[in-house]
Formats: sequence, structure tokens, C-alpha cells
Amino acid sequence: MTVMAKELHHPEREQIELSAVLEALSEPTRREIVAQLLEQGESPCQAFDDKAPKSNVSYHLARLREAGVTRTRVAGAYRMISVRVDDLAARFPGLLDAIVAASRVKASAE
Amino acid sequence: MTVMAKELHHPEREQIELSAVLEALSEPTRREIVAQLLEQGESPCQAFDDKAPKSNVSYHLARLREAGVTRTRVAGAYRMISVRVDDLAARFPGLLDAIVAASRVKASAE
Repeated sequence: MTVMAKELHHPEREQIELSAVLEALSEPTRREIVAQLLEQGESPCQAFDDKAPKSNVSYHLARLREAGVTRTRVAGAYRMISVRVDDLAARFPGLLDAIVAASRVKASAE
Repeated sequence: MTVMAKELHHPEREQIELSAVLEALSEPTRREIVAQLLEQGESPCQAFDDKAPKSNVSYHLARLREAGVTRTRVAGAYRMISVRVDDLAARFPGLLDAIVAASRVKASAE
């Protein structure tokens, strides 16, 4: 089981697709998770328990990982999540910053 | 009919939602339409006939308009499409530029 968990799929930097990144970040809860990770650094998945029901958090984290936005590192019994800041900055300069900044804009309808 | 066509829904600047913009631009054909509009300026919808079958183009243009990314202006028998550059820059500074720049990145998998 540990071995399988260590083999969680992550796209290589060059495989990260813009469509997948934008789709992953089009969901408000996933943007909140990313914002929290950027603020607090690598965190166990339990750190997002307040964002949504546990099964939804797992789903959101899997979507972010598969899109190449986050990395999941298995550390014993914990799954540690971080944002792939360097990979995203290298692949799509300025994109993550612009989206995170846009997330802070107060919306009249959101 | 003309009257109805003139009443196509456009969100106000303050109503433009980040989730809707990212979702609209998560689709490659829609990003191509936006890139072409930015290059060529306001264009009739026929200008995108090479991007996809006509019904799909109509669908994509509606999605972009409803998300607040583009404006559709009825000019007689033509529908003229433009990108809401000022509205987007005011609402989410740098976002459109970052996405357009990212669209130019050659992807190994896209």
C-alpha cells in the first residue's frame, strides 16, 4: 500500500497543460486550497478539513495534483501537499500569481 | 428579432466572476478565439469559422460572452465580437495577459 501511495501520478513539468491548470483553478474551493498552501507552505491534507467534506477535499486535491498544480508527498501516514510554484512559474510565467491575485478581488456576485 | 438580439446578456464589470473566466478560458478553441480577437480587434463571428463547426463557434462565443470575456455587438446583420480588455484588466489585473502568454507556450502533450 505504501508503495502504491508513493506512485501517485504527477505530470512532468513539460507535460503540465494550460487547459488542465485553468480548469483545476476554476473551482473556488481549489483556489482556496492553493492560496492557503502558498501562505502556509507544505501542509498535510488534514489542513483543509475546514474547506469541504473530507471526500470532497480528497477529490479536489487529486484534481490539483493531476493538473500539475500541486505535489503530494507521502510521509509515513501523512500526505503532504505543496504547490508546484517553480514548475508553474517556469512553464507559465505570471499565471499563478495573476490567478491568486484575482482570487482576492471581492466579487459582487461570488 | 433585432431588438432581442440587441439584448444579449453581458455581465457588468463588477459581476464578472473569476471562476467563470477561468472556466471559459480552460477550453483551447476559446483561447484561440480570444487570441485572434486580441490580434485583429473586433471581428464578425464569421471570422472564427475555421476554428470549429459553426454551431460550436456559436456555443463558444456565447460561453465567452456570458463569462464576461467578450462583448457581442449587433451591427445590422452582423454580430461583432471583441474582448473586454478594459473590464478584465480593471477587475483582474494581469490575468488575461498571463493566460494569453501561457497559451503561446508549446506543450509536449497539448
